[in-house]
Amino acid sequence: MNSNQSLAEDLVLRRERLQSAMQRQNTEACILTSSINIFYLTGVIYAGYLYVPATGKPVHFVKRPEGFSLANSVPVQKPELIPDALKNLRLPLPSTVFLETDVLSWNNCLRLLHALGLSEAGNASALLRSLRKVKTPYEIGMTRQNARQHEKVYEAVPSLYQKGMTDIGLQVELEYWIRQHGSLGIFRTFGENMDVHMGIVLSGDNAGNPSPFDYALGGEGISPALPVSANGSVIREGQTVMVDMAGNFTPWMTDITRVYALGKLPELAYRAHQVSLEIHQAFLETAKPGTACAALYELSVEITRKNKLESFFMGTRQQAKFVGHGVGLEINEPPVLMARSREALEPGIVFALEPKYVIPGVGAVGIENTYLVTSCGLEKLTIVKEDITAL
Amino acid sequence: MNSNQSLAEDLVLRRERLQSAMQRQNTEACILTSSINIFYLTGVIYAGYLYVPATGKPVHFVKRPEGFSLANSVPVQKPELIPDALKNLRLPLPSTVFLETDVLSWNNCLRLLHALGLSEAGNASALLRSLRKVKTPYEIGMTRQNARQHEKVYEAVPSLYQKGMTDIGLQVELEYWIRQHGSLGIFRTFGENMDVHMGIVLSGDNAGNPSPFDYALGGEGISPALPVSANGSVIREGQTVMVDMAGNFTPWMTDITRVYALGKLPELAYRAHQVSLEIHQAFLETAKPGTACAALYELSVEITRKNKLESFFMGTRQQAKFVGHGVGLEINEPPVLMARSREALEPGIVFALEPKYVIPGVGAVGIENTYLVTSCGLEKLTIVKEDITAL
Repeated sequence: MNSNQSLAEDLVLRRERLQSAMQRQNTEACILTSSINIFYLTGVIYAGYLYVPATGKPVHFVKRPEGFSLANSVPVQKPELIPDALKNLRLPLPSTVFLETDVLSWNNCLRLLHALGLSEAGNASALLRSLRKVKTPYEIGMTRQNARQHEKVYEAVPSLYQKGMTDIGLQVELEYWIRQHGSLGIFRTFGENMDVHMGIVLSGDNAGNPSPFDYALGGEGISPALPVSANGSVIREGQTVMVDMAGNFTPWMTDITRVYALGKLPELAYRAHQVSLEIHQAFLETAKPGTACAALYELSVEITRKNKLESFFMGTRQQAKFVGHGVGLEINEPPVLMARSREALEPGIVFALEPKYVIPGVGAVGIENTYLVTSCGLEKLTIVKEDITAL
Repeated sequence: MNSNQSLAEDLVLRRERLQSAMQRQNTEACILTSSINIFYLTGVIYAGYLYVPATGKPVHFVKRPEGFSLANSVPVQKPELIPDALKNLRLPLPSTVFLETDVLSWNNCLRLLHALGLSEAGNASALLRSLRKVKTPYEIGMTRQNARQHEKVYEAVPSLYQKGMTDIGLQVELEYWIRQHGSLGIFRTFGENMDVHMGIVLSGDNAGNPSPFDYALGGEGISPALPVSANGSVIREGQTVMVDMAGNFTPWMTDITRVYALGKLPELAYRAHQVSLEIHQAFLETAKPGTACAALYELSVEITRKNKLESFFMGTRQQAKFVGHGVGLEINEPPVLMARSREALEPGIVFALEPKYVIPGVGAVGIENTYLVTSCGLEKLTIVKEDITAL
């Protein structure tokens, strides 16, 4: 089976899973409008409306590109033309519809609803996110392929560092290396507060600088217009550099963080780093299908507390309230490993675990790996040296 | 006057312009939630709700970062807490409100409206875009500063090209050069169909490949997950490379396109390039405050038609229906220079003009410059050699 065949079969599987869920939720149609969800279901991106009925073939209502050649596609310049286009295809106007209400703007949702003569929509964002949470065989294959390329970034870091470098200098070298080695560039995130450019590099006390954006650790950034990541600090003796850069060599991302140090660190930093590794080990030993995400978060907190590191956990001035997250076409997918999660692990979930500690005067320590949930437990997808590496 | 003083005064001016417009439109409050609009009005970014009453001081309801220190800020973890927070500040609950309905998701809009006990919102997206269209003195200063840095990118292109290079190879070198020279990285766009990574490089026939995204020219991209820009083609003798890369060295962007060629091009390509320069010259000679954007679009079409280049104008397989656009904190601001525009030029508008032609077998030609509308006409902000440059 070549990969095109396997992609075609996988797309059928994804569509069938969506339609089964729609049937269970008694909705007649789902209209998808985001690049991510259209790509998930078709393998391509177009501007327009992917119309998925609860049974039967989806229709592609395409605004752009012109001359788009996907089977069952109809040029449609505005949503008001959808009802007539459906009629021409002998498809009924739906009486219930799911739209991407978590991401589609108020005005575009309203316009679609008016066009369909409906007054409310179900939440296709939540539905698609819950489906995308459990990866298909093709997606898992792409994730593995991505991991192999992403690991190499972290092996390259010491060779990219030069004495006297700033954090942003190192970040720019990493961005260049990553793009030269096939990164797709764009770094897709879900939600309204996830601005970032290709990832996060934090050195010394910048690791404790809070960001408005919802990452595990933030940093000040080099401009008030992008308050996250490196802030131009020179990388100093006795401090760490935490590298958490985009792994988007295929559309299915992985997430990896590693720590580098210039010279010797205080004992506390090495100890906290070991506690992060201990948490990863505890996950590998206990997590399996059915394990509650909240329990996994509690496990991280418990190990942290046992080691009296609570005040450094996931930041100092601002502490993130999660220790891991799903990853796939977007960097922040469900499930979120946090205290108030009601989700449990399932086979096919791919998630990143990132217990991190910020040590004042030193910087951030701890690692992040991406795991696949299998029927018997966790499989570590990202294999690269986990100790603190000397620069 | 130092630049901090001038920024503080400029922020007051921006806020006063917003509040005057709100008073004219009879709305009591505006709640801004996007990074861009919060940055525009405060000079910083936070996650939360910027509450602007029609008169008096704005309040910053801040979700993140914790410990945020802007004057008049109140920590608010969810919109449901806004009414009580207003009461504590002795501010009335508004009976009319503007929200960012062009970008804020359906669910987040609905949640805000419910929290305020309202059933509808005016369009703060459109209002802010119309205000931001006319740049303030500080913004114009930043735009000029940005232009000086952005111009240098285009001077560097020939030194970054190496024989046998692919288009994506050249793009990655340009990205690296741009970041090394202070680019903020993130490339902000408005709307749901503007995916891109740092800009567009098009060589040879890839210039004619349509993209789902709403750029003047598209390109195929290196992955179906990002169908825009370079597609991995080797840059060939007798073809052009069009470079349209991000100019985000300050938060206020400029937009520049230049064309490079390997060897000699067919006469048609040089001629079409000259017609693009002629359109720029015609704008410089005729455009001034009051000139209709639709008339400027028609002027471009007319000069194109006079030169019998209609079938190459703004693409071949897919032809963009605009020839220019405002630029600022986002790359695609109003006004749009298109046939159905009802807008006219005003002093303080900054716009990019990009008449481009795609010549089959050769590639794209034409240039893009950024102009400031002054009281007497246009001022060209981006000064860099306009001829086709040899690689």
